[in-house]
Amino acid sequence: MNSNIFELEYRIPYYDVDYQKRTLITSLINYFNDIAFVQSENLGGIAYLTQNNLGWVLMNWDIKVDRYPRFNERVLVRTAPHSFNKFFAYRWFEIYDKDEIKIAKANSRWLLINTEKRRPVKINDYLYGIYGVSYENNNILPIEEPQKLLSIDIEKQFEVRYSDLDSNGHANNVKYVVWALDTVPLEIISNYSLKRLKVKYEKEVTYGKTVRVLTGIFSEQKTIVSLHKIVDEDETELCFLESVWFLNEKLS
Amino acid sequence: MNSNIFELEYRIPYYDVDYQKRTLITSLINYFNDIAFVQSENLGGIAYLTQNNLGWVLMNWDIKVDRYPRFNERVLVRTAPHSFNKFFAYRWFEIYDKDEIKIAKANSRWLLINTEKRRPVKINDYLYGIYGVSYENNNILPIEEPQKLLSIDIEKQFEVRYSDLDSNGHANNVKYVVWALDTVPLEIISNYSLKRLKVKYEKEVTYGKTVRVLTGIFSEQKTIVSLHKIVDEDETELCFLESVWFLNEKLS
Repeated sequence: MNSNIFELEYRIPYYDVDYQKRTLITSLINYFNDIAFVQSENLGGIAYLTQNNLGWVLMNWDIKVDRYPRFNERVLVRTAPHSFNKFFAYRWFEIYDKDEIKIAKANSRWLLINTEKRRPVKINDYLYGIYGVSYENNNILPIEEPQKLLSIDIEKQFEVRYSDLDSNGHANNVKYVVWALDTVPLEIISNYSLKRLKVKYEKEVTYGKTVRVLTGIFSEQKTIVSLHKIVDEDETELCFLESVWFLNEKLS
Repeated sequence: MNSNIFELEYRIPYYDVDYQKRTLITSLINYFNDIAFVQSENLGGIAYLTQNNLGWVLMNWDIKVDRYPRFNERVLVRTAPHSFNKFFAYRWFEIYDKDEIKIAKANSRWLLINTEKRRPVKINDYLYGIYGVSYENNNILPIEEPQKLLSIDIEKQFEVRYSDLDSNGHANNVKYVVWALDTVPLEIISNYSLKRLKVKYEKEVTYGKTVRVLTGIFSEQKTIVSLHKIVDEDETELCFLESVWFLNEKLS
């Protein structure tokens, strides 16, 4: 068990909620990315990585949301590096409301790479040390991969915008989710809540490129599942996503 | 002078900085929109407006930035409703760093409308009361309008995404700035700093519509000026923008 638990409070600002004043899942992912970066910087990870041409590349999200915080609500986000396994790091996130109720959780998998050679690098003792990860604990966090897309109902193109870019010059990981969810029909977004999101990243994408989202949607009872594949102009696969939507309960 | 000054602290998160780790101007505008909304809600303005089918529609921004805050920096944003003038409200914003140095300021102009009839409404006594605006002070804040675009160098299309929408179902005012700035060449964004931004809004735009940004760029000595016009599919004018860029000083 890693004791390097870090927490930050986030107040939900106006621009992080949708037209129903519910926080966007992409905003929750923004908080996860931010708190991971802040902790990594606090521990000296970012400085060490930069000096040694190393970087963490996000491979997977597996996110479960029970309740979306509302505008102006204050939530506590907790995270810790859970374990390392050769090239891979596992990190979890939890969101608590002011009554200490856990309203969302996420597991993530990251790959350590050499940023010049763009090749995986085995996680070394120094990184074990500063992230406080034990050698004994190399068990991985449970992360489900998205189901493969079999039939396409919707297709949409996006051009990578300047504001989509990360500090490394690639489209930020959350933008893949923005593009994918933008293909989900508004009647689903209005009447259903996204309770589970699985993302598998395959390849980065840069400024000015056009990406294409292929989406398949099927329903089972009170649930709708949307599957997404994102490809670039050469049909190279960039990302796979699966989102699970539950019908909102009507207030009587 | 209005004494209804309201302030909030913002920590600059990872997703609000560009690849040079400088805060995006669109993030600063997000903070302005957020703090205005929070103050308006605290004063009972939002509840009153909703009950009476009223709403504030943003007409103008005139923003000056001396220094962009960096990742993880904490800044204090201050705002107050300055004055009312018939249908129009004027609100100012200031951003201070931890040394109490003012690093940015903005003036804004808002129109009160009936949200059903989409018609301007004269600001009534009740709103003067709760916003703490005096009848004597009907002087307006200085707001410069963007210069008109005369020649077009760059043209780009954007589709209004779900994540672009405000809680009223229209594209959020900051998205017009996102679209406009996305047409500015990366070599300007990389080597220059945006120090002044003037925006004039003409018309709202809804989900799924395609907007077109027409951009003209000219330079004068160490300054580059970019002018933008945003139109919809019917060539209706939605927004005009002017941004002024100063060459970054090289560290020697």
